[in-house]
Amino acid sequence: MMTIPTDHPRYRSLIVRERLAGFAREGIVSPEGLAAHGRGEAFDYLIGERTTDGALLAEKTAAVMLRSARYPVISVNGNTAALAAREIALLQLASGAIVEVNLFHRTEERVRNITRLLESNGVTVLSGKAERIVPLPHDRGLSYPEGTGKADVILVSLEDGDRCETLKKMGKTVIAIDLNPLSRTARMASLTIVDEVTRALPMITGFLGTLEEPEIAFLSGTPDNNYFLREAIKEMKRRLTHALD
Amino acid sequence: MMTIPTDHPRYRSLIVRERLAGFAREGIVSPEGLAAHGRGEAFDYLIGERTTDGALLAEKTAAVMLRSARYPVISVNGNTAALAAREIALLQLASGAIVEVNLFHRTEERVRNITRLLESNGVTVLSGKAERIVPLPHDRGLSYPEGTGKADVILVSLEDGDRCETLKKMGKTVIAIDLNPLSRTARMASLTIVDEVTRALPMITGFLGTLEEPEIAFLSGTPDNNYFLREAIKEMKRRLTHALD
Repeated sequence: MMTIPTDHPRYRSLIVRERLAGFAREGIVSPEGLAAHGRGEAFDYLIGERTTDGALLAEKTAAVMLRSARYPVISVNGNTAALAAREIALLQLASGAIVEVNLFHRTEERVRNITRLLESNGVTVLSGKAERIVPLPHDRGLSYPEGTGKADVILVSLEDGDRCETLKKMGKTVIAIDLNPLSRTARMASLTIVDEVTRALPMITGFLGTLEEPEIAFLSGTPDNNYFLREAIKEMKRRLTHALD
Repeated sequence: MMTIPTDHPRYRSLIVRERLAGFAREGIVSPEGLAAHGRGEAFDYLIGERTTDGALLAEKTAAVMLRSARYPVISVNGNTAALAAREIALLQLASGAIVEVNLFHRTEERVRNITRLLESNGVTVLSGKAERIVPLPHDRGLSYPEGTGKADVILVSLEDGDRCETLKKMGKTVIAIDLNPLSRTARMASLTIVDEVTRALPMITGFLGTLEEPEIAFLSGTPDNNYFLREAIKEMKRRLTHALD
């Protein structure tokens, strides 16, 4: 492994990428997951690799939705576990949500490895036998009756568009964390947080601890997801405009 | 491996990603290379996954520069070999350029595997002992005296910014194929083609066969690289503007 010089202009991004590459060698992250991460990096670059005001409001709204949920579930894939196992543990503590492992490139070994990684970071992971809860032809349809099956509100990050769309059709409320405001997931979700997952999760956790009743009343109801997407797109255009200054 | 339905809205992009993932399992593509590919996908999405007018003019300009070069070299890394071995063979035939393998995550085994892949697609690959031709602290500095060492014009794709900058300082003319118009490579190169590599290479090859003398006179001289970057950025902003229509 090479050493990345700390003064490299994209040091943090490269370190995270190296970390994911390491998890890929261990089988936690799939090769396709690495490529998907790269796509996220590009969009993160375009919002300045920081939580924008629009994303912050979306994170607060997500906290309200999780607080008001009857049966909240956090659906975790390989990339999210590799990047944010600790952050998921803290959000689970604050929200009381069920955490379920859900993989696009699913093998029993990957489920086991990811479960172990999450548990070693303090997450309580739903166990049991996966069933085709979500009517999709590939492994992303496999889920748990006591997880996605019962959920009214599901938080997903780095999700595929098919599954997001199907969850919505099943009547679930879907909160998506997705850096690409143009993705099918971003456009299908009930609420999209256009932010990087390790920045977004602690914010939601933080808001869960500080929300006050009037805010909950003000923010609850159906969120205008297009507002959040438009704000993210505006920010990306602003960055592109000034890119060569 | 799952099967991607042909009616999936991002079918081509997913197929290419699957192909790269396969090459990653064989050690041709590094995990970091997969993430870098994903970043390219995001920017390709923003230019509409097609060759823009600006990119086409840059490809024509690249053909002129290769035609006028004294000692042209094509520098190939793992991603480029995995995506475009055949396209490199055809460009080499048309341009007479030396092809050299140059890796960020370099092992002798990867160099061997990539060389074999290129050769089986008809590329003549420069052999010999790599030396630190480019003054860089990591393996990207390793190169060949009869390749980068002697080159006046170097075509690189999916390059790192450090190396591009150093090649420029060494007095080389660098043609970069890079989907990110904001990258250091894109901004440091003598000419940047903001296009996907399997679309860009055949275009350059095509222009090499059809260039006429007056065009060469018109297009030669130092290209205004910022023009090409501004055109690409304009296109991305246009796409973002209409993304939610």
